[in-house]
Amino acid sequence: MRFRVLKKDDCSKARYGEIETPHGIVKTPVFMPVGTQATVKTLTPAQLKDLGVEAIICNAYHLSLRPGEEVVRDLGGVHRFMGWDRTVVTDSGGYQVFSLRNTIRVSEEGVEFSSPFAGERVFLSPEKVIEIQLALGSDIMMPFDHCVPYPCERDVAKEAMLRTDRWTRRCHTTFSDGKQGGQALFGIVQGSVFKDLRLESVRRLGEMDLDGYAVGGLSVGEGRYLMKEVLDYTIERLPWDKPRYLMGVGLPADILDAVEKGVDMFDCVLPTRNGRNGSAFTTGGKIKLFNSVYREDQRPLDDGCGCYTCRTFSRAYLRHLFFAGEILAMTLVSLHNVHFFQEMMSDARQAVLSGTFGKFKEEFLDVQEKEYSK
Amino acid sequence: MRFRVLKKDDCSKARYGEIETPHGIVKTPVFMPVGTQATVKTLTPAQLKDLGVEAIICNAYHLSLRPGEEVVRDLGGVHRFMGWDRTVVTDSGGYQVFSLRNTIRVSEEGVEFSSPFAGERVFLSPEKVIEIQLALGSDIMMPFDHCVPYPCERDVAKEAMLRTDRWTRRCHTTFSDGKQGGQALFGIVQGSVFKDLRLESVRRLGEMDLDGYAVGGLSVGEGRYLMKEVLDYTIERLPWDKPRYLMGVGLPADILDAVEKGVDMFDCVLPTRNGRNGSAFTTGGKIKLFNSVYREDQRPLDDGCGCYTCRTFSRAYLRHLFFAGEILAMTLVSLHNVHFFQEMMSDARQAVLSGTFGKFKEEFLDVQEKEYSK
Repeated sequence: MRFRVLKKDDCSKARYGEIETPHGIVKTPVFMPVGTQATVKTLTPAQLKDLGVEAIICNAYHLSLRPGEEVVRDLGGVHRFMGWDRTVVTDSGGYQVFSLRNTIRVSEEGVEFSSPFAGERVFLSPEKVIEIQLALGSDIMMPFDHCVPYPCERDVAKEAMLRTDRWTRRCHTTFSDGKQGGQALFGIVQGSVFKDLRLESVRRLGEMDLDGYAVGGLSVGEGRYLMKEVLDYTIERLPWDKPRYLMGVGLPADILDAVEKGVDMFDCVLPTRNGRNGSAFTTGGKIKLFNSVYREDQRPLDDGCGCYTCRTFSRAYLRHLFFAGEILAMTLVSLHNVHFFQEMMSDARQAVLSGTFGKFKEEFLDVQEKEYSK
Repeated sequence: MRFRVLKKDDCSKARYGEIETPHGIVKTPVFMPVGTQATVKTLTPAQLKDLGVEAIICNAYHLSLRPGEEVVRDLGGVHRFMGWDRTVVTDSGGYQVFSLRNTIRVSEEGVEFSSPFAGERVFLSPEKVIEIQLALGSDIMMPFDHCVPYPCERDVAKEAMLRTDRWTRRCHTTFSDGKQGGQALFGIVQGSVFKDLRLESVRRLGEMDLDGYAVGGLSVGEGRYLMKEVLDYTIERLPWDKPRYLMGVGLPADILDAVEKGVDMFDCVLPTRNGRNGSAFTTGGKIKLFNSVYREDQRPLDDGCGCYTCRTFSRAYLRHLFFAGEILAMTLVSLHNVHFFQEMMSDARQAVLSGTFGKFKEEFLDVQEKEYSK
């Protein structure tokens, strides 16, 4: 994997760059639609390509439980399995495993938990998590991190951060032994909302030859103000020449704030989850299609939008599909929402290139912020 | 609407033709995917076009209840509403209304029933059913017919057939007053499995200047043998120069049998319903993706198939999507199934053109019949 910063914004820390993986170029800042189960919900790979998507993120933990990483490997790896020949990032599943809370047993060796399917006990270690991702054959892999909820006691956050560091070293060893040309391993900065813990996490991870740095443990209930604060002191200490990835974020306003601070990569379920719920992102704010005001509204979701959904269908038709329980409704609004995020990132990159990111962000959020940041 | 028979098969009553509607040419024999709620379930109009679909059938009764025919009319008619600029046939909803059985009150004037939504009483008359279809703006409309279940007493079947005739005359009057250039109204032959009733129905409907003739009240439990018998004596008495439409059929074997008897049009929910249930039509028989034998099967659904699903995904991947509860599974298998029916009809037309329909049918069903006609 190679990463190049090609342009820095004149008035902020925002940057334009390119990540080159074995499956193509990913222009940054990038938003990656989530394909947990090796599918971006409701959309075909052909539709994702038409939307200009260059990278998606799948989940190693989920795919290991079902259909099993050996099945995916034997079928040619995750790209061939899901018919997606562009970049695939895999999350380790640390976040998901630690969300199981009551059923898990954490030791230095790893985590034991009950499978949500048959209920049998499953054991995941840092080594195993990398072996899964190597079997999947993803382009960018994430280490097994110890995630803590918010709020979190300082000593618990510290222990989790230190364990994440030790686990990342074990991940790195397994990765270095097994990686094939161009595959990458990132680190994940932990430390909850404690500045000294975050900085120690950055320092420790910096000792390893990792290909990029993610900020984990945010957008878990700490609120937008605290998240911004953590990003402020964390991002600027990450290496300039490595991609920076804010995991699980998020809302347009939060993404653009983070781009301004120098973050390069994002992922979130929002465009597809909201799409399935009948909630559309538009330049004029959020549209909830179940609202009766759209019953006879012949306008597209977003007047200026060039996506297939907006070129073809009215709000009234989409609303009808939702009320009729038609699956196509979910597909069409998911498609529009992913397009919305793609366009937002494309415009952000153009703004960085022309040195006008601050102005772009301000104008974009003028409307968005009122709608989304409540 | 214009219909031309361009070629008759040398050894059977099968024929190749073209229906020209205000929204294009429909090559016959044709299979029309069902879009009850103004959407062919899980598929976009763009995907249907790519599959070569030239006509779909929507349901006037359903669209009248939701979103209401005035809404569709005010939004530019059903074509614009659903983003489909090719031919739209609308069924009247007679079949659906009479399926409500216990809650309906039938009189010579029409049918009163309880809306399945709010429960309020709704009244449909022959005139109203045509007014709905005129508001929708479909290309080919169906009259309000009195459908009877199977088995059915002879006097009940006779009364329903005669009422269908009287209602069709009223439909025809309303249609003639309201139709716009090129719109068509078909008749629906009723009479259950009683030969003299069917023939009387054909004779009576023949007195009207209708644009085509459908055979209704079949594929309702009478079984394949009785259906063939009814078609045998009914189809040959229908006018040669008008399209013949076998409603709600069906399985590949039944379709090809009917093509051989001179039927031109078909519709059925099977390709999309089976697609959503994980059941795929293939040249080698039915594939049920929940079956464990497909767990690591890297072959496409159908080896010789050129559809997007088969070009891109393995059976193992599709099975994974179904087990993961992913909506994309339904889309991909529906897409394949519609493609299968499109190809079957395209091959059937080619066979008629080259005078080899009998041979084509025999070879096609060699495999299919074993699988589907049980």
